[in-house]
Amino acid sequence: MSQPSLPTTDRTRLRRKAERGSHDRETVAAILDAGLICHVGFGVDGRPWVFPTTYARVGEVVYLHGAVGNFALQTLAAGAEVCVTVTLIDGLVLARSAFHHSMNYRSVMLFGVAEPVTDESEKREALLAIVDHMAPGRAADSRSPTPEELLSTLVVRLPISEGSAKVRTGPPIDDAEDTGLSHWAGVLPLRLVPGTPVPDPLEPGPASSGGPTQPAPLPTPSYLTDWAALRGADAP
Amino acid sequence: MSQPSLPTTDRTRLRRKAERGSHDRETVAAILDAGLICHVGFGVDGRPWVFPTTYARVGEVVYLHGAVGNFALQTLAAGAEVCVTVTLIDGLVLARSAFHHSMNYRSVMLFGVAEPVTDESEKREALLAIVDHMAPGRAADSRSPTPEELLSTLVVRLPISEGSAKVRTGPPIDDAEDTGLSHWAGVLPLRLVPGTPVPDPLEPGPASSGGPTQPAPLPTPSYLTDWAALRGADAP
Repeated sequence: MSQPSLPTTDRTRLRRKAERGSHDRETVAAILDAGLICHVGFGVDGRPWVFPTTYARVGEVVYLHGAVGNFALQTLAAGAEVCVTVTLIDGLVLARSAFHHSMNYRSVMLFGVAEPVTDESEKREALLAIVDHMAPGRAADSRSPTPEELLSTLVVRLPISEGSAKVRTGPPIDDAEDTGLSHWAGVLPLRLVPGTPVPDPLEPGPASSGGPTQPAPLPTPSYLTDWAALRGADAP
Repeated sequence: MSQPSLPTTDRTRLRRKAERGSHDRETVAAILDAGLICHVGFGVDGRPWVFPTTYARVGEVVYLHGAVGNFALQTLAAGAEVCVTVTLIDGLVLARSAFHHSMNYRSVMLFGVAEPVTDESEKREALLAIVDHMAPGRAADSRSPTPEELLSTLVVRLPISEGSAKVRTGPPIDDAEDTGLSHWAGVLPLRLVPGTPVPDPLEPGPASSGGPTQPAPLPTPSYLTDWAALRGADAP
Protein backbone atom coordinates (compact mmCIF):
# COMPACT_ATOMS: atom_id res chain seq x y z
CA MET A 1 0.00 0.00 0.00
CA SER A 2 1.47 3.33 -1.03
CA GLN A 3 1.35 6.58 0.88
CA PRO A 4 -1.66 8.82 0.25
CA SER A 5 0.66 11.58 -0.98
CA LEU A 6 3.35 11.64 -3.63
CA PRO A 7 6.73 12.69 -2.26
CA THR A 8 7.89 16.29 -2.57
CA THR A 9 11.01 16.37 -4.73
CA ASP A 10 13.09 19.07 -6.37
CA ARG A 11 10.79 18.80 -9.34
CA THR A 12 7.49 18.70 -7.48
CA ARG A 13 8.12 21.25 -4.77
CA LEU A 14 5.31 23.70 -5.40
CA ARG A 15 6.73 26.94 -6.64
CA ARG A 16 4.35 29.72 -7.49
CA LYS A 17 0.71 29.75 -6.34
CA ALA A 18 1.51 26.90 -3.99
CA GLU A 19 -1.99 27.14 -2.54
CA ARG A 20 -3.28 25.73 -5.83
CA GLY A 21 -1.05 22.67 -5.63
CA SER A 22 -1.32 19.18 -4.22
CA HIS A 23 0.63 15.96 -3.97
CA ASP A 24 -2.44 14.01 -2.94
CA ARG A 25 -2.63 10.76 -4.91
CA GLU A 26 -6.44 10.83 -5.12
CA THR A 27 -6.41 14.36 -6.53
CA VAL A 28 -3.77 13.37 -9.08
CA ALA A 29 -5.70 10.21 -10.05
CA ALA A 30 -9.00 12.08 -10.42
CA ILE A 31 -7.47 14.61 -12.81
CA LEU A 32 -5.74 11.88 -14.82
CA ASP A 33 -9.07 10.06 -15.10
CA ALA A 34 -10.93 13.21 -16.13
CA GLY A 35 -8.47 14.14 -18.90
CA LEU A 36 -8.66 12.68 -22.40
CA ILE A 37 -5.17 13.41 -23.69
CA CYS A 38 -1.80 14.12 -22.14
CA HIS A 39 1.19 16.04 -23.43
CA VAL A 40 4.38 13.97 -23.28
CA GLY A 41 7.65 15.86 -23.08
CA PHE A 42 11.20 14.56 -23.42
CA GLY A 43 14.54 15.64 -24.78
CA VAL A 44 16.60 14.20 -27.61
CA ASP A 45 20.12 15.56 -28.08
CA GLY A 46 19.23 18.35 -25.70
CA ARG A 47 16.20 19.47 -27.68
CA PRO A 48 12.67 19.24 -26.28
CA TRP A 49 9.65 17.54 -27.82
CA VAL A 50 6.04 17.71 -26.63
CA PHE A 51 3.55 15.28 -28.18
CA PRO A 52 -0.17 14.97 -27.49
CA THR A 53 -1.44 11.42 -27.04
CA THR A 54 -4.11 9.35 -25.37
CA TYR A 55 -3.42 7.40 -22.21
CA ALA A 56 -5.02 5.52 -19.35
CA ARG A 57 -4.40 5.34 -15.63
CA VAL A 58 -4.60 1.88 -14.07
CA GLY A 59 -3.94 1.96 -10.35
CA GLU A 60 -0.63 3.71 -9.81
CA VAL A 61 0.51 3.50 -13.40
CA VAL A 62 -0.11 5.52 -16.56
CA TYR A 63 0.03 3.66 -19.88
CA LEU A 64 0.95 5.30 -23.17
CA HIS A 65 0.94 3.58 -26.53
CA GLY A 66 1.87 4.03 -30.15
CA ALA A 67 2.98 2.16 -33.23
CA VAL A 68 6.32 0.37 -32.85
CA GLY A 69 7.82 2.92 -35.24
CA ASN A 70 6.51 5.89 -33.23
CA PHE A 71 9.38 8.26 -32.40
CA ALA A 72 8.01 9.38 -29.03
CA LEU A 73 7.20 5.88 -27.82
CA GLN A 74 10.56 4.55 -29.01
CA THR A 75 12.30 7.33 -27.10
CA LEU A 76 10.35 6.59 -23.95
CA ALA A 77 10.84 2.85 -24.25
CA ALA A 78 14.60 3.49 -24.53
CA GLY A 79 14.55 5.04 -21.06
CA ALA A 80 14.33 8.79 -21.65
CA GLU A 81 13.31 10.99 -18.74
CA VAL A 82 9.74 12.08 -19.36
CA CYS A 83 7.30 14.69 -18.14
CA VAL A 84 3.63 13.87 -18.74
CA THR A 85 1.18 16.74 -18.28
CA VAL A 86 -2.62 16.53 -18.33
CA THR A 87 -4.59 19.78 -18.35
CA LEU A 88 -8.34 20.33 -18.20
CA ILE A 89 -9.72 23.77 -19.00
CA ASP A 90 -12.62 24.63 -16.70
CA GLY A 91 -13.22 28.29 -17.45
CA LEU A 92 -12.01 31.74 -18.35
CA VAL A 93 -11.43 34.02 -15.39
CA LEU A 94 -12.14 37.63 -16.34
CA ALA A 95 -10.88 40.12 -13.82
CA ARG A 96 -11.52 43.84 -14.17
CA SER A 97 -7.81 44.35 -14.76
CA ALA A 98 -6.10 42.73 -17.75
CA PHE A 99 -3.34 41.79 -15.30
CA HIS A 100 -5.50 39.49 -13.15
CA HIS A 101 -7.06 37.53 -16.01
CA SER A 102 -6.60 33.81 -15.50
CA MET A 103 -8.13 30.43 -16.22
CA ASN A 104 -9.80 27.86 -14.06
CA TYR A 105 -8.12 24.53 -14.73
CA ARG A 106 -7.01 21.22 -13.31
CA SER A 107 -3.59 19.89 -14.24
CA VAL A 108 -1.19 17.14 -13.31
CA MET A 109 2.51 16.85 -14.07
CA LEU A 110 4.19 13.48 -13.71
CA PHE A 111 7.94 12.87 -13.92
CA GLY A 112 9.96 9.72 -14.32
CA VAL A 113 11.16 7.07 -16.70
CA ALA A 114 8.73 4.77 -18.48
CA GLU A 115 9.28 1.09 -19.12
CA PRO A 116 8.18 -0.90 -22.14
CA VAL A 117 5.42 -3.39 -21.37
CA THR A 118 6.53 -6.77 -22.66
CA ASP A 119 4.00 -9.06 -21.02
CA GLU A 120 1.30 -9.76 -23.60
CA SER A 121 -1.61 -9.80 -21.19
CA GLU A 122 -0.54 -6.57 -19.48
CA LYS A 123 -0.16 -5.02 -22.92
CA ARG A 124 -3.66 -6.10 -23.93
CA GLU A 125 -5.15 -4.83 -20.67
CA ALA A 126 -3.33 -1.51 -21.11
CA LEU A 127 -4.68 -1.04 -24.63
CA LEU A 128 -8.21 -1.90 -23.53
CA ALA A 129 -7.83 0.52 -20.62
CA ILE A 130 -6.90 3.26 -23.12
CA VAL A 131 -10.06 2.48 -25.11
CA ASP A 132 -12.17 2.47 -21.94
CA HIS A 133 -10.59 5.74 -20.86
CA MET A 134 -12.07 7.32 -24.00
CA ALA A 135 -15.52 5.87 -23.39
CA PRO A 136 -16.10 3.67 -20.32
CA GLY A 137 -17.45 0.31 -21.45
CA ARG A 138 -16.28 0.58 -25.02
CA ALA A 139 -13.45 -1.95 -24.71
CA ALA A 140 -15.94 -4.78 -24.15
CA ASP A 141 -17.90 -3.58 -27.19
CA SER A 142 -15.04 -3.71 -29.69
CA ARG A 143 -12.93 -6.34 -31.38
CA SER A 144 -10.05 -7.16 -29.04
CA PRO A 145 -6.45 -6.83 -30.30
CA THR A 146 -4.99 -9.75 -32.22
CA PRO A 147 -1.49 -11.04 -31.42
CA GLU A 148 -0.25 -9.28 -34.58
CA GLU A 149 -1.78 -5.98 -33.49
CA LEU A 150 -0.16 -6.34 -30.07
CA LEU A 151 3.21 -6.94 -31.75
CA SER A 152 2.83 -3.82 -33.85
CA THR A 153 2.08 -1.67 -30.81
CA LEU A 154 4.51 -0.26 -28.27
CA VAL A 155 3.10 0.24 -24.78
CA VAL A 156 5.00 1.90 -21.96
CA ARG A 157 4.23 2.09 -18.28
CA LEU A 158 5.00 5.23 -16.27
CA PRO A 159 4.67 4.75 -12.51
CA ILE A 160 2.80 7.54 -10.72
CA SER A 161 5.59 8.11 -8.23
CA GLU A 162 6.73 11.71 -8.73
CA GLY A 163 4.39 14.52 -9.65
CA SER A 164 1.85 17.02 -8.49
CA ALA A 165 -1.55 18.49 -9.26
CA LYS A 166 -2.51 22.12 -9.61
CA VAL A 167 -6.09 23.39 -9.56
CA ARG A 168 -7.59 26.85 -9.87
CA THR A 169 -11.27 27.38 -9.17
CA GLY A 170 -13.49 30.30 -8.32
CA PRO A 171 -13.94 33.96 -9.23
CA PRO A 172 -11.33 36.48 -10.32
CA ILE A 173 -9.25 38.20 -7.66
CA ASP A 174 -8.98 41.86 -8.47
CA ASP A 175 -7.01 44.44 -6.57
CA ALA A 176 -9.31 46.16 -4.06
CA GLU A 177 -9.04 49.49 -5.84
CA ASP A 178 -10.31 47.92 -9.09
CA THR A 179 -13.51 46.30 -7.81
CA GLY A 180 -15.58 49.41 -8.52
CA LEU A 181 -14.54 49.57 -12.20
CA SER A 182 -17.39 49.14 -14.64
CA HIS A 183 -15.89 46.14 -16.47
CA TRP A 184 -17.84 42.91 -16.18
CA ALA A 185 -15.95 40.43 -14.02
CA GLY A 186 -16.53 36.77 -13.41
CA VAL A 187 -16.02 33.32 -14.92
CA LEU A 188 -17.04 31.85 -18.25
CA PRO A 189 -17.27 28.12 -17.47
CA LEU A 190 -15.97 25.84 -20.24
CA ARG A 191 -16.58 22.17 -20.68
CA LEU A 192 -15.75 19.57 -23.32
CA VAL A 193 -19.22 18.60 -24.49
CA PRO A 194 -20.19 15.70 -26.77
CA GLY A 195 -22.26 16.38 -29.87
CA THR A 196 -24.54 13.93 -31.67
CA PRO A 197 -22.71 10.68 -32.46
CA VAL A 198 -21.95 10.37 -36.19
CA PRO A 199 -22.20 6.75 -37.35
CA ASP A 200 -19.50 5.48 -39.69
CA PRO A 201 -20.81 5.81 -43.27
CA LEU A 202 -20.13 2.07 -43.52
CA GLU A 203 -22.76 1.43 -40.84
CA PRO A 204 -26.09 0.25 -42.24
CA GLY A 205 -28.42 3.26 -42.56
CA PRO A 206 -32.13 3.42 -41.76
CA ALA A 207 -33.98 0.75 -43.78
CA SER A 208 -34.99 2.13 -47.20
CA SER A 209 -38.15 1.13 -49.02
CA GLY A 210 -36.11 -0.72 -51.63
CA GLY A 211 -33.95 -2.69 -49.21
CA PRO A 212 -35.89 -5.11 -47.01
CA THR A 213 -32.77 -7.24 -46.45
CA GLN A 214 -30.70 -4.27 -45.22
CA PRO A 215 -29.59 -5.01 -41.62
CA ALA A 216 -31.00 -2.67 -38.98
CA PRO A 217 -28.69 0.16 -37.91
CA LEU A 218 -26.99 -0.40 -34.59
CA PRO A 219 -28.41 1.71 -31.77
CA THR A 220 -26.13 4.36 -30.32
CA PRO A 221 -24.40 2.71 -27.35
CA SER A 222 -25.21 3.98 -23.86
CA TYR A 223 -21.55 4.78 -23.21
CA LEU A 224 -21.92 7.49 -25.86
CA THR A 225 -25.35 8.82 -24.95
CA ASP A 226 -24.31 8.89 -21.26
CA TRP A 227 -20.68 9.79 -22.01
CA ALA A 228 -20.36 12.90 -19.87
CA ALA A 229 -21.99 11.29 -16.83
CA LEU A 230 -19.99 8.08 -17.16
CA ARG A 231 -16.68 9.87 -17.35
CA GLY A 232 -17.57 12.25 -14.53
CA ALA A 233 -15.02 14.69 -15.88
CA ASP A 234 -16.75 17.93 -14.94
CA ALA A 235 -15.10 20.70 -13.05
CA PRO A 236 -15.18 20.55 -9.24
CA MET B 1 6.90 38.69 -46.69
CA SER B 2 7.46 35.14 -45.49
CA GLN B 3 6.90 31.99 -47.47
CA PRO B 4 3.43 30.42 -47.19
CA SER B 5 4.99 27.25 -45.76
CA LEU B 6 7.26 26.69 -42.81
CA PRO B 7 10.50 24.94 -43.80
CA THR B 8 10.86 21.19 -43.39
CA THR B 9 13.61 20.50 -40.87
CA ASP B 10 14.89 17.45 -39.02
CA ARG B 11 12.36 18.21 -36.34
CA THR B 12 9.40 18.97 -38.57
CA ARG B 13 9.81 16.31 -41.22
CA LEU B 14 6.50 14.49 -40.96
CA ARG B 15 7.07 11.05 -39.61
CA ARG B 16 4.10 8.80 -39.11
CA LYS B 17 0.68 9.50 -40.66
CA ALA B 18 2.34 12.13 -42.86
CA GLU B 19 -0.94 12.57 -44.73
CA ARG B 20 -2.29 14.26 -41.60
CA GLY B 21 0.52 16.80 -41.49
CA SER B 22 1.13 20.24 -42.90
CA HIS B 23 3.72 23.00 -42.85
CA ASP B 24 1.25 25.52 -44.22
CA ARG B 25 1.49 28.76 -42.24
CA GLU B 26 -2.24 29.47 -42.49
CA THR B 27 -3.11 26.04 -41.13
CA VAL B 28 -0.65 26.50 -38.28
CA ALA B 29 -1.99 30.00 -37.51
CA ALA B 30 -5.63 28.86 -37.56
CA ILE B 31 -4.93 26.10 -35.02
CA LEU B 32 -2.95 28.45 -32.79
CA ASP B 33 -5.83 30.91 -32.89
CA ALA B 34 -8.42 28.22 -32.12
CA GLY B 35 -6.56 26.82 -29.09
CA LEU B 36 -6.84 28.33 -25.63
CA ILE B 37 -3.76 26.93 -23.94
CA CYS B 38 -0.45 25.53 -25.09
CA HIS B 39 1.93 23.05 -23.47
CA VAL B 40 5.45 24.42 -23.21
CA GLY B 41 8.28 21.90 -23.06
CA PHE B 42 11.95 22.45 -22.27
CA GLY B 43 14.81 20.72 -20.53
CA VAL B 44 16.76 21.75 -17.46
CA ASP B 45 19.84 19.70 -16.57
CA GLY B 46 18.69 17.12 -19.09
CA ARG B 47 15.29 16.67 -17.49
CA PRO B 48 12.08 17.60 -19.30
CA TRP B 49 9.32 19.91 -18.11
CA VAL B 50 5.90 20.46 -19.72
CA PHE B 51 3.80 23.38 -18.45
CA PRO B 52 0.33 24.43 -19.57
CA THR B 53 -0.12 28.14 -20.14
CA THR B 54 -2.10 30.71 -22.10
CA TYR B 55 -0.65 32.44 -25.13
CA ALA B 56 -1.48 34.56 -28.14
CA ARG B 57 -0.39 34.58 -31.75
CA VAL B 58 0.30 37.98 -33.29
CA GLY B 59 1.37 37.71 -36.91
CA GLU B 60 4.30 35.33 -37.07
CA VAL B 61 5.03 35.35 -33.36
CA VAL B 62 3.63 33.52 -30.32
CA TYR B 63 3.73 35.36 -26.99
CA LEU B 64 3.91 33.60 -23.62
CA HIS B 65 3.84 35.33 -20.27
CA GLY B 66 4.22 34.74 -16.56
CA ALA B 67 5.32 36.39 -13.36
CA VAL B 68 8.98 37.46 -13.32
CA GLY B 69 9.63 34.69 -10.80
CA ASN B 70 7.99 32.02 -12.98
CA PHE B 71 10.40 29.10 -13.50
CA ALA B 72 9.24 28.25 -17.01
CA LEU B 73 9.30 31.82 -18.27
CA GLN B 74 12.69 32.44 -16.68
CA THR B 75 14.08 29.35 -18.39
CA LEU B 76 12.67 30.43 -21.75
CA ALA B 77 13.89 34.00 -21.35
CA ALA B 78 17.37 32.61 -20.62
CA GLY B 79 17.43 31.05 -24.09
CA ALA B 80 16.37 27.43 -23.57
CA GLU B 81 15.29 25.46 -26.62
CA VAL B 82 11.52 25.13 -26.43
CA CYS B 83 8.74 23.06 -27.97
CA VAL B 84 5.29 24.63 -27.80
CA THR B 85 2.37 22.31 -28.58
CA VAL B 86 -1.28 23.29 -28.99
CA THR B 87 -3.87 20.52 -29.24
CA LEU B 88 -7.60 20.74 -29.85
CA ILE B 89 -9.73 17.67 -29.27
CA ASP B 90 -12.47 17.37 -31.92
CA GLY B 91 -13.87 13.92 -31.30
CA LEU B 92 -13.52 10.31 -30.28
CA VAL B 93 -13.07 7.92 -33.19
CA LEU B 94 -14.61 4.55 -32.38
CA ALA B 95 -13.58 1.82 -34.76
CA ARG B 96 -15.01 -1.68 -34.55
CA SER B 97 -11.57 -2.93 -33.51
CA ALA B 98 -9.95 -1.66 -30.33
CA PHE B 99 -6.77 -1.32 -32.41
CA HIS B 100 -8.15 1.34 -34.77
CA HIS B 101 -9.60 3.61 -32.10
CA SER B 102 -8.35 7.13 -32.49
CA MET B 103 -9.22 10.76 -31.93
CA ASN B 104 -10.04 13.62 -34.24
CA TYR B 105 -7.83 16.53 -33.34
CA ARG B 106 -5.90 19.54 -34.56
CA SER B 107 -2.42 20.14 -33.21
CA VAL B 108 0.60 22.33 -33.82
CA MET B 109 4.16 21.86 -32.62
CA LEU B 110 6.52 24.82 -32.72
CA PHE B 111 10.26 24.66 -32.07
CA GLY B 112 12.81 27.33 -31.39
CA VAL B 113 14.24 29.70 -28.84
CA ALA B 114 12.13 32.47 -27.35
CA GLU B 115 13.36 35.98 -26.58
CA PRO B 116 12.32 38.19 -23.70
CA VAL B 117 10.24 41.18 -24.77
CA THR B 118 11.87 44.27 -23.33
CA ASP B 119 10.07 47.02 -25.22
CA GLU B 120 7.27 48.28 -22.99
CA SER B 121 4.75 48.89 -25.72
CA GLU B 122 5.32 45.47 -27.33
CA LYS B 123 4.96 43.93 -23.88
CA ARG B 124 1.68 45.72 -23.28
CA GLU B 125 0.37 44.74 -26.71
CA ALA B 126 1.38 41.12 -26.10
CA LEU B 127 -0.44 40.99 -22.77
CA LEU B 128 -3.57 42.53 -24.26
CA ALA B 129 -3.34 40.04 -27.14
CA ILE B 130 -3.30 37.19 -24.59
CA VAL B 131 -6.46 38.64 -22.99
CA ASP B 132 -8.11 39.04 -26.39
CA HIS B 133 -7.11 35.49 -27.31
CA MET B 134 -9.25 34.29 -24.37
CA ALA B 135 -12.23 36.42 -25.39
CA PRO B 136 -11.98 38.65 -28.47
CA GLY B 137 -12.75 42.23 -27.48
CA ARG B 138 -12.09 41.77 -23.79
CA ALA B 139 -8.79 43.68 -23.74
CA ALA B 140 -10.57 46.94 -24.57
CA ASP B 141 -13.07 46.20 -21.80
CA SER B 142 -10.58 45.77 -18.96
CA ARG B 143 -8.17 47.94 -17.01
CA SER B 144 -4.93 48.12 -18.99
CA PRO B 145 -1.65 47.07 -17.29
CA THR B 146 0.14 49.65 -15.19
CA PRO B 147 3.90 50.19 -15.54
CA GLU B 148 4.35 48.25 -12.26
CA GLU B 149 2.32 45.32 -13.59
CA LEU B 150 4.40 45.33 -16.77
CA LEU B 151 7.59 45.23 -14.70
CA SER B 152 6.33 42.29 -12.68
CA THR B 153 5.51 40.28 -15.83
CA LEU B 154 7.90 38.37 -18.06
CA VAL B 155 6.84 38.13 -21.70
CA VAL B 156 8.69 36.09 -24.30
CA ARG B 157 8.33 36.01 -28.06
CA LEU B 158 8.68 32.76 -30.00
CA PRO B 159 8.91 33.25 -33.76
CA ILE B 160 6.74 30.88 -35.78
CA SER B 161 9.62 29.73 -37.93
CA GLU B 162 9.95 25.99 -37.35
CA GLY B 163 6.98 23.73 -36.75
CA SER B 164 4.14 21.78 -38.23
CA ALA B 165 0.46 21.03 -37.88
CA LYS B 166 -1.27 17.69 -37.70
CA VAL B 167 -4.99 17.16 -38.19
CA ARG B 168 -7.20 14.08 -38.13
CA THR B 169 -10.80 14.31 -39.27
CA GLY B 170 -13.46 11.89 -40.41
CA PRO B 171 -14.75 8.44 -39.61
CA PRO B 172 -12.85 5.44 -38.23
CA ILE B 173 -10.87 3.32 -40.65
CA ASP B 174 -11.45 -0.33 -39.85
CA ASP B 175 -9.84 -3.27 -41.53
CA ALA B 176 -12.10 -4.52 -44.33
CA GLU B 177 -12.75 -7.83 -42.57
CA ASP B 178 -14.05 -5.99 -39.49
CA THR B 179 -16.66 -3.76 -41.11
CA GLY B 180 -19.39 -6.36 -40.68
CA LEU B 181 -18.88 -6.69 -36.92
CA SER B 182 -21.83 -5.66 -34.82
CA HIS B 183 -20.01 -3.03 -32.81
CA TRP B 184 -21.21 0.55 -33.28
CA ALA B 185 -18.60 2.56 -35.18
CA GLY B 186 -18.34 6.26 -35.80
CA VAL B 187 -17.33 9.53 -34.20
CA LEU B 188 -18.42 11.23 -31.00
CA PRO B 189 -17.79 14.93 -31.74
CA LEU B 190 -16.39 16.91 -28.81
CA ARG B 191 -16.27 20.65 -28.41
CA LEU B 192 -15.24 23.05 -25.66
CA VAL B 193 -18.56 24.73 -24.89
CA PRO B 194 -19.18 27.79 -22.71
CA GLY B 195 -21.69 27.59 -19.90
CA THR B 196 -23.61 30.47 -18.36
CA PRO B 197 -21.27 33.29 -17.31
CA VAL B 198 -20.92 33.49 -13.51
CA PRO B 199 -20.57 37.09 -12.33
CA ASP B 200 -17.97 37.81 -9.67
CA PRO B 201 -19.72 37.80 -6.28
CA LEU B 202 -18.34 41.33 -5.90
CA GLU B 203 -20.44 42.47 -8.85
CA PRO B 204 -23.60 44.34 -7.84
CA GLY B 205 -26.53 41.89 -7.79
CA PRO B 206 -30.06 42.50 -9.11
CA ALA B 207 -31.57 45.54 -7.38
CA SER B 208 -33.24 44.57 -4.12
CA SER B 209 -36.37 46.27 -2.76
CA GLY B 210 -34.38 47.78 0.05
CA GLY B 211 -31.55 49.16 -2.02
CA PRO B 212 -32.57 51.89 -4.44
CA THR B 213 -29.00 53.24 -4.48
CA GLN B 214 -27.48 49.85 -5.47
CA PRO B 215 -25.82 50.24 -8.89
CA ALA B 216 -27.37 48.19 -11.67
CA PRO B 217 -25.58 44.89 -12.47
CA LEU B 218 -23.42 45.04 -15.57
CA PRO B 219 -24.91 43.23 -18.55
CA THR B 220 -23.07 40.13 -19.76
CA PRO B 221 -20.70 41.37 -22.49
CA SER B 222 -21.33 40.26 -26.05
CA TYR B 223 -17.85 38.70 -26.27
CA LEU B 224 -19.06 36.17 -23.71
CA THR B 225 -22.58 35.55 -25.05
CA ASP B 226 -21.12 35.21 -28.58
CA TRP B 227 -17.88 33.63 -27.43
CA ALA B 228 -17.94 30.47 -29.54
CA ALA B 229 -18.84 32.34 -32.73
CA LEU B 230 -16.28 35.08 -32.13
CA ARG B 231 -13.45 32.65 -31.55
CA GLY B 232 -14.45 30.46 -34.49
CA ALA B 233 -12.66 27.57 -32.86
CA ASP B 234 -14.89 24.77 -34.07
CA ALA B 235 -13.63 21.68 -35.79
CA PRO B 236 -13.21 21.80 -39.58
